[in-house]
Amino acid sequence: MSDVGTFHTGPRDRGQTSPAELDPGQLSPAQSRALFRAGLRRPTSGFSPGYAQANLLAVPRELAFDMLLFAQRNPKSCPVLGVLEAGQVNSEPLEGGDIRTDLPAYRVYRDGELVAEPNEVIEQWRPDLVAFLIGCSFTFEAPLLAAGIPIAHMEQGVNVPMYKTSVRCRPAGALSGPLVVSMRPLPADRIADAVRITSRYPGVHGAPVHIGSPREIGIRDLSAPDFGDAVEVPEGWTPVFWACGVTPQAAVMESAPELAISHAPGHMLITDLPDAELQVP
Amino acid sequence: MSDVGTFHTGPRDRGQTSPAELDPGQLSPAQSRALFRAGLRRPTSGFSPGYAQANLLAVPRELAFDMLLFAQRNPKSCPVLGVLEAGQVNSEPLEGGDIRTDLPAYRVYRDGELVAEPNEVIEQWRPDLVAFLIGCSFTFEAPLLAAGIPIAHMEQGVNVPMYKTSVRCRPAGALSGPLVVSMRPLPADRIADAVRITSRYPGVHGAPVHIGSPREIGIRDLSAPDFGDAVEVPEGWTPVFWACGVTPQAAVMESAPELAISHAPGHMLITDLPDAELQVP
Repeated sequence: MSDVGTFHTGPRDRGQTSPAELDPGQLSPAQSRALFRAGLRRPTSGFSPGYAQANLLAVPRELAFDMLLFAQRNPKSCPVLGVLEAGQVNSEPLEGGDIRTDLPAYRVYRDGELVAEPNEVIEQWRPDLVAFLIGCSFTFEAPLLAAGIPIAHMEQGVNVPMYKTSVRCRPAGALSGPLVVSMRPLPADRIADAVRITSRYPGVHGAPVHIGSPREIGIRDLSAPDFGDAVEVPEGWTPVFWACGVTPQAAVMESAPELAISHAPGHMLITDLPDAELQVP
Repeated sequence: MSDVGTFHTGPRDRGQTSPAELDPGQLSPAQSRALFRAGLRRPTSGFSPGYAQANLLAVPRELAFDMLLFAQRNPKSCPVLGVLEAGQVNSEPLEGGDIRTDLPAYRVYRDGELVAEPNEVIEQWRPDLVAFLIGCSFTFEAPLLAAGIPIAHMEQGVNVPMYKTSVRCRPAGALSGPLVVSMRPLPADRIADAVRITSRYPGVHGAPVHIGSPREIGIRDLSAPDFGDAVEVPEGWTPVFWACGVTPQAAVMESAPELAISHAPGHMLITDLPDAELQVP
């Protein structure tokens, strides 16, 4: 899904580290976060394997109850791994870190419009922001691979394709929006295994929400995803759809709060949560 | 756990129904709620089997985010089955019902003090109250029984014993408090089965939090529970502890909000949620 060779480093990297010598697969979560804090800007796929990566979504306190209720009502798309209360910039899932600097790239929205994509958000952060950490399906891709289940977007070297669907989420207060899904095509003899394996990880979207006909959920053209990249679906394979962490972001953007801060796509928070802690029996 | 013979009816029962002719085990959730709405006052054990029963906890909107965050951080003790937003008195889990009348008995707290235990709370309800419905372990007792696992408090005809522990919950905003647990003693050869079965129901407290030594979690005397009734622990059996839905109530009471409304112990909300929907693989 991503090369692990030389790093594309951001403007804040002043050579204190020699990231080209580092293997992302060997970094602890704290080490990865330190690199990003120092200015490294690149997608986090492959960093600190074995630890959960998370979507970030920070909204003003007055929208926080609606956001948490939206997550509670739509647990497959919005599995909450942690919440930093207003005024907190670190917490259990990023001990000793800083949510304003420890991701490789952020997105800043004002009144629902994307206005910046900075390396850190120290200046934009406000003490009334509540930060939600939402599970990411990167987590269950490792056990899928371990079971020999092919992951097309990895094999094709692109980002996973994501689609807005015609399925509406259950609304909560001011928040409503469409279910967003990620898609991984699978051969007929591995779909049941993929269901079985991913169902053990409800904290990172769990089992698929839809298997087969894209039209049934309002997707007209698999080759034109709303986010990420298209993947080729091999002859005889079936598209399998999982709820996606972009869903809460879509709902918050529809409500156009004066300020919202998220990660940039693919540039996730690497948490201290071991993947194993997210597995249910 | 409770007889299903003649009913103890409350003051609002004016003979429109003939409850003595009804079998609680045959009532739909809506029928049970209608009986309670009409004034029937008795514990709900045995009513509408196959449907989830829920703890009620309603707090003012200003405390609602803290309450939902407390639940998110303490999911084993506070599994949220549903939330009625400020101004709502019915919702999906009690379609066509009214949260202010459909439980057999309520408790009203002002500044953390119990001030009334009425049959309905129409007068006490306020439009800024947010009502949380929290899972109840009644749900997993049915599959335990179906597997032939003995439930001591049922066999002894008493309420389940519950204890405050020395384990602190993860705090959230203004809310903090002790983990409260329920206890069921089990024979050595059925503990693994009980773990396996209850772990499938995370929405109603899931797997045990503690098996064995009560002292390790600050319980000095099993025969003196903080809530419910003591049960006899047969020779050679081990006490098994599950997180309990009294936990969030204890935390809210410690924070002493100006108004809080809950169910009276054992007098639960009977929801339209089939137990089967709460089962995970």
